[in-house]
Parts: sequence; C-alpha cells; structure tokens
Amino acid sequence: EVTIYGRVDLGVAQYAEAAGSLKVRELRQGSGSRLGFRGVEDLGGGLSAFFDLQHRFDGDTGVAAPRYWEGQSIVGVGDKRWGSIYLGRTDAATYGLVEVPADPFLTETVAHATQIIRGRVGTNRNSSSINYRGTFGSVTLRAQIAEAEENPSTAAIIGVDAAGRFKTSAGITDKRPYSVAASYAAGPVWLAAGYENPTDKDDHWAAIAGSYDFGSVKLGAFVGSGKNVLAEGMRGTLLSLTAPIGSGALRASLGRLQNTTRHLTTDKQVGIGYQVLLSKRTALYTDIVRQQRDGIGNAKGAGRLQQTGFDLGIRHLF
Amino acid sequence: EVTIYGRVDLGVAQYAEAAGSLKVRELRQGSGSRLGFRGVEDLGGGLSAFFDLQHRFDGDTGVAAPRYWEGQSIVGVGDKRWGSIYLGRTDAATYGLVEVPADPFLTETVAHATQIIRGRVGTNRNSSSINYRGTFGSVTLRAQIAEAEENPSTAAIIGVDAAGRFKTSAGITDKRPYSVAASYAAGPVWLAAGYENPTDKDDHWAAIAGSYDFGSVKLGAFVGSGKNVLAEGMRGTLLSLTAPIGSGALRASLGRLQNTTRHLTTDKQVGIGYQVLLSKRTALYTDIVRQQRDGIGNAKGAGRLQQTGFDLGIRHLF
Amino acid sequence: EVTIYGRVDLGVAQYAEAAGSLKVRELRQGSGSRLGFRGVEDLGGGLSAFFDLQHRFDGDTGVAAPRYWEGQSIVGVGDKRWGSIYLGRTDAATYGLVEVPADPFLTETVAHATQIIRGRVGTNRNSSSINYRGTFGSVTLRAQIAEAEENPSTAAIIGVDAAGRFKTSAGITDKRPYSVAASYAAGPVWLAAGYENPTDKDDHWAAIAGSYDFGSVKLGAFVGSGKNVLAEGMRGTLLSLTAPIGSGALRASLGRLQNTTRHLTTDKQVGIGYQVLLSKRTALYTDIVRQQRDGIGNAKGAGRLQQTGFDLGIRHLF
Repeated sequence: EVTIYGRVDLGVAQYAEAAGSLKVRELRQGSGSRLGFRGVEDLGGGLSAFFDLQHRFDGDTGVAAPRYWEGQSIVGVGDKRWGSIYLGRTDAATYGLVEVPADPFLTETVAHATQIIRGRVGTNRNSSSINYRGTFGSVTLRAQIAEAEENPSTAAIIGVDAAGRFKTSAGITDKRPYSVAASYAAGPVWLAAGYENPTDKDDHWAAIAGSYDFGSVKLGAFVGSGKNVLAEGMRGTLLSLTAPIGSGALRASLGRLQNTTRHLTTDKQVGIGYQVLLSKRTALYTDIVRQQRDGIGNAKGAGRLQQTGFDLGIRHLF
Repeated sequence: EVTIYGRVDLGVAQYAEAAGSLKVRELRQGSGSRLGFRGVEDLGGGLSAFFDLQHRFDGDTGVAAPRYWEGQSIVGVGDKRWGSIYLGRTDAATYGLVEVPADPFLTETVAHATQIIRGRVGTNRNSSSINYRGTFGSVTLRAQIAEAEENPSTAAIIGVDAAGRFKTSAGITDKRPYSVAASYAAGPVWLAAGYENPTDKDDHWAAIAGSYDFGSVKLGAFVGSGKNVLAEGMRGTLLSLTAPIGSGALRASLGRLQNTTRHLTTDKQVGIGYQVLLSKRTALYTDIVRQQRDGIGNAKGAGRLQQTGFDLGIRHLF
Repeated sequence: EVTIYGRVDLGVAQYAEAAGSLKVRELRQGSGSRLGFRGVEDLGGGLSAFFDLQHRFDGDTGVAAPRYWEGQSIVGVGDKRWGSIYLGRTDAATYGLVEVPADPFLTETVAHATQIIRGRVGTNRNSSSINYRGTFGSVTLRAQIAEAEENPSTAAIIGVDAAGRFKTSAGITDKRPYSVAASYAAGPVWLAAGYENPTDKDDHWAAIAGSYDFGSVKLGAFVGSGKNVLAEGMRGTLLSLTAPIGSGALRASLGRLQNTTRHLTTDKQVGIGYQVLLSKRTALYTDIVRQQRDGIGNAKGAGRLQQTGFDLGIRHLF
C-alpha cells in the first residue's frame, strides 16, 4: 500500500550558487535528491485518505536536509468531485501550480530560473499549512494558508548598507503566509496564474504564465510582479522554449528580474540545455547558462555574480 | 519481507504542553507521526528472528525527532512457546503493557493522560535495553533492563526553590533502569500490573489497571503509586470510559495525580472525545480536555497551568 | 522496483574502541546497523541504470549517523560487458575490493582488523566520488577519484608532542583522493591488490591479499605498505583462517601494524570467533580478541591500549 519513490541526480558542473561561493568544477546535484513514501486509501463513495512524506538529501555527500522531510509531509482527505484538503508541509500554491511549470528546466540544473520566477519574494514550501487542491475538467485550483511562526520570513531586512547589501533584523513582524493559484490546460494550451503573500508584512508576489505547444516546439512566457520585504517593486519575466529532438528534448529560457523601485536589474540570464531520455525514469542532461546577479534586491545580501555555468549529469527516478 | 508502516496525525488544536508554552490555536499533531520498517523471518522449529525500526517526526513541519529511530530500534529472536528476547531501544514494560492501554486515549490527542499514568516518575522508552515478552494463553509477561548511561534520569532534581519549582543538578547517581509487567485478557476482562524502577536512584512506580467491557460501554480504572526523584510519594488514579457509537467511539477519562508527601494535587483533568473511523486505518477525531497542572511535582520545573484544550484532526495509519 | 535491505546487529560486549574510552560491559553493535534502498532499471541493449542509498545508525540507541546516508549514496549506469560508472558517496576501491575481504571478520565484531588492513592510512568511504567497477571473467577492477573538499584528511598532523601523541593542524594542503584495485577469484583461489592515495598530500597505501580454500579450512594472508600523514612508513600484515564447522564457521586472525620509521609496533592483535548461521540472514556470534595498540602512529592521538575484548550477539539481515 505504501509506494516508495525518489530520485538521485548527480553530475559534474561548473557553477556558483551565489557570489562568494567558489565557481568550481565539481560533482554537484542537478536537482535535490529525494526519497519518498506515499499512499492512498480508498474510503468508498469517492472519498480517499492519503499521505506523502518526502525526504531531501545531497546525493553527492549523503547528507540529509536539516529538515529531514524537507520536500513534503502531508496527510489529507480527497473527494473525487470536490478535491482534496491536506495538512502539513508542502509547496506554496503559486510555486507548485504556476512558477515551477513556467520554468522549462523545472527549477533544476544550472540553467534553472528559480530566482526569477519567485522574484526573490516568493517561497517554495511552507510548514504547518492547510491546503486545498481541486481539478475540474481543464481547471485546477490550489490554495494554502500556513502558520507564521513555523515559516519565518527569509529576509528580515531593515535597510541597505554602504556596499549596497541588505541589513537584516530579527525584530520583524510576521503574519500568516498564504497563496492561491489556478491553471488551465487543454490541448496545446496551458495558462496559470497565482498570488502569494509570504510571511513578511510587506512582501507579495503575483505571477501569470502560459505556453502553447506547436508540436515541434513549445513556447512559453512568464510575468511576475510584486513587492519584496523592503516594499520595493520587483518584476520578473521569463521566455521559454522546449523542443523534442530525438529521444530527448532541447530546453531554453531567457529571463530577467528587475527592482523597479531602484531601477536595477537584479537577475539576467539565458540558459540552454539538452536531455536524452534513456527511459521514462533515467535521463542524461547537459546545460549551459550565462547569468548575472546583483547584490541589490538579493535577500541574502550577496554581491555581484557574473558567470557561465555548465553541467553534465544523470537523473534517475525510482 | 520488509513491512513499511506508519502514521501521520495532524489537526487544529488549542493546547499548551506546559505552562510557559503559549496556549495557541495552531496546527498540531494528535500523536507522534511515524515511519517504520519491520520484518519477521521464520527460522523453523517455532523459532523466528525479527526486527523493528520506528522513526518519529513532527508531521506538521517535517522535522525528524533528534533521535531519529526514537520509537523503536530492536532485533530479537522469538520462540512460539517461550516468547521473545530482543535488544535495543523500545518501550518500558510497564508503559507498554499497563499504562498506555489504561488510557482510553492511548496517550494521544489533547485529552491524553500521560502525566497521570506515568506519575511524573516512569519513562516511556529506554535505549540499550534487553527485553523479554511472552504470551501464555490469556497472560502476557514483559520485562526490561537497560543501561543507565544511555538513559539518564529525566530529572536530576536536588531541591525546591522559593517559587516552588525544582532545582536540578547533573551530579546525580544513576543505576540500571528496569521494569516488569503482566497482563491478563479474557473475554470482557482486562487486568494488568507492572513495576518500574527508572534510572534515578530514588524513583520507582507501581501501576495496576483493569477494565470490563459491558458491550455498549467499557469501564476502566488505573491506580499508580511510587516515589519521584526527590523520594516524595506520588499517587495517580484514572477512571475511563469507552463507548462505541455509530462507526466511531466516545472516549472519556477522569484523572488525578497527587504528591502525597506535599499533600498536593499536581495534575487533575477530565477529557472527553469522539472519533469517527472512516476505515480501519483512517479516523477523524475531536477532543476536549479541562486540566490543571501544578509546578510542584513537575519534574520539568514548570509552573501552574490551567487550561481547556481542544483538537480536531485526522489520523491516518499506513 | 525499489528493494529495501538492511541489518540490525546487537550484542553484549566488553570492548574499548580506543584508549580513554571505558572498557565496559555493555550492549553494543557488532557492525553498523543499516537500512538501504536500491534499484536497477533495465535500459535495454545490456545497459542499466541503478542507485543505492544506505543509511547507517546505532541500533543500540536509535541514533542516526551524523551523515545520514553514511554507507552509500550513488547513482550510475552499467553495461553488461564494460562495467559500471557511478557517482556519489561510496567505499574506496581498495577498501571494498582488497581490505574488507582480507579480514575474516569483514571488519565486524570486536575481532575486526580494520586498523591493520587500512594501516592507519586508508579510508573506508569517500563522498563526491566518480567510480568505475567492471568484472571480466575471474577479474574485477575498481577505481575511484573524489573531491578533496568533501573528504578532508582524517589526520591533519603536524608533529608529535612530548607524550608521543600527534599534534594536528587545520592548515594542511589536501589533494584529490583516489584508489585503484583489482581482484581475481577462480575456484579455491582469491587474489587482490590495490593502491590508495587518500586526501592528505603525504599518505598512500598499497595492499595485497590472497586466500586458498582447502575445503575444510580457508587460509589467507594480507600485506599492506605505505606512508601515513607524517610521511612515516607503515606496514601491516594479517594472517587469517576460516573453517566451516556445523551450521556455522570458525574465524581467526593474527595481525600486526608497524611504523617502520619509528621502529614501533602500533597494533598487534589475535582474534578468534564462531558464528552459528540460524538462516542465511540471521547469525549468532561470539568472539574474543587480545589486542595492543600504541599512541604512536594513531592518527587520533590516542594513548596505549591493551585489552581482551569479548562479544556475544545477533546479526539479522533483511
């Protein structure tokens, strides 16, 4: 009754996550390795109970994520017609339904566009959350509300220092984070929109995305807009392309994130990659990304980073 | 050959574990979420080898227990006639065979009576233990002895301060903890008794419990008596009621724990709850408890707590 | 598709891992308890993809290894003819192919010869490694190269103090660790040789081992030679005997490790043990070892240790 699932994703790469971290050629994960346990119990009458526990770890070194069940920890009940309600730790509605599908790299490999689609504002997951998900024909709806105490705002920023880096404080007033999202998928068309209000009192992020599959190529676009923890305007755009070639697919994206209050481009990148599917579960991939990141608008207070990243790896799902 | 099992139990609740912790409305676990791996190997001739590993975690946040295999970590050999011997970390004989079954809430939900049945003296689990368990017809016997080093006494208390709270010291002489217990179950009758001598040199706890199932209602009683780490007398009583109603069950208990040396009532509570069984594995539950706890006799040195707790949750076993 | 495997190995023992640690009678693991998840996917044409994740923990107390996937964390692709390439954390080529099989106790129980076969020089496992393994008839080849950053040298030693113990420093220049090994197995003959160059700039270790199975008894010998982190010569020898008796096996070894630069014997031990196989998966074992260790050449800087160790335990595989 319990299904075990997971992935191990490792390769060689030249990539720096942030300025200050070394730009090294090394063994590196293309996406977070994971091990999960899930199950669904049929309760009759269209009702079901389900759970999903997803551990994350660094496949490179065998080190577990500090929060062991980082990926997911939920229990819920579902109804065939009305959808599911579930409790625990899981991804934010906008991140899961709008942002991740808008990135042709699905936030994976060195060419991922995580910074741009979240706008340095949104979060990927929240603990202590109550969630709803329902699919009605072509439409899927999601909503999440969580406890502020268990999801402190990632950037308790109070100003900018002389070097243009954010100063932070622990005395920030937080509030319950929530997010809502909807998507529409029919034939070649995919459309999605969402709104997220993270824990910090000032930040919020609205995102809209869409794609059209022409068969030989799928084109997509993403626009996000909102305010960061300093209540400064942020705006992100991402253009994407996916093209099946042979037994694999070419993927490319061109993105930009701007701080509209400071009239600065905080992130700018172009990425292209190819993955060969050895099977439904196993892929070899290689990617190259040219990116520029700026300290201003970077919640972590990191400085300027300009790099060409590269990877070559294997992703195995089980 | 390996069986995966577990539970995720989450709900909304208003409850404070101890005075000083906030009395908050929040997402909260009704019982510890767990993931386990166990197996039995038939060795022939009535002999078997078995193991059981049980991880505990907070389903709310995905955080693993500091001791990862908190619930259980054992390996042993069993004989059909003579019972089993097993080594490792597991529950104390009295806790598993007498105390937990005496609580109609099985130490779960906000209405649990853990403090009363353990008398603020006993422990739930010990590491580095050698255990025996055997069932002979209606009678089950259990015994445990463990290392003192791996099971330091929870309260190294040396006195009481002006505010009536315990002062603690690390210079306590510990000794090997042990426990023995027996139960009898036949038809509507259940009887159980046990004796536990935890690691501290002064504490010990004897418990006796019984219940009679009238069919429409099962009534039970528990009495515990012993000495805490200050060698002060402790006495606990718990009356319980369980009644099947519809596809669920009404559960109620009325309990009290007294420090007989100080002539004080340290715990007093009445709890009532109802759980609907959606299946054998999935239940919805709601409970209310009115309780009063006093700092005196509270090993953790917490102050006075008077509260009405409430919960509404889902418990899913897999 | 995912196979769960593992072991729990516990017993009573009198043994001290190092001087300074108490020589206690206690519950103790005979070998590291583990829980693993592995799988192989057939990609067609003789190709396959595979992964293996192996958690280690202390079965005695339920405490996880600080590095959760301590035992293994790999993903790779294999070819029936040409062998496998795999990435992640796994054992060094020499340790897995030469050293462990050379110890009749397989580095387990109190009679293990881990110190001697690694020569206080080699490592058992490396993170962030690229590995090759191939079997061609009777011959198996293995090779590993890893990142220095993720595998700091275990002993950053800069000298010896007045008490004869090593002084250590963090300012050591490390380089990529690597190892190569080959083995030959045909009928009663087993031969193996390997060379390991750990992270430290000065250390290296060459090992050669062989055994001949006479049917009623298998005799083996091991010789290792190299330099430690102080560039001092180390030389280890181990003679071994395994004899099937009844449903079990007698195992014995006689070993010595010398610091040839200082003309000192750092380790000297003789061990003998018997294990009864209750099944293919479950064994009872008892062992006795007489050993002497010296602080000089001991990377951990421990002092002199002279002891008679003893164990009696159960090892259950699943």
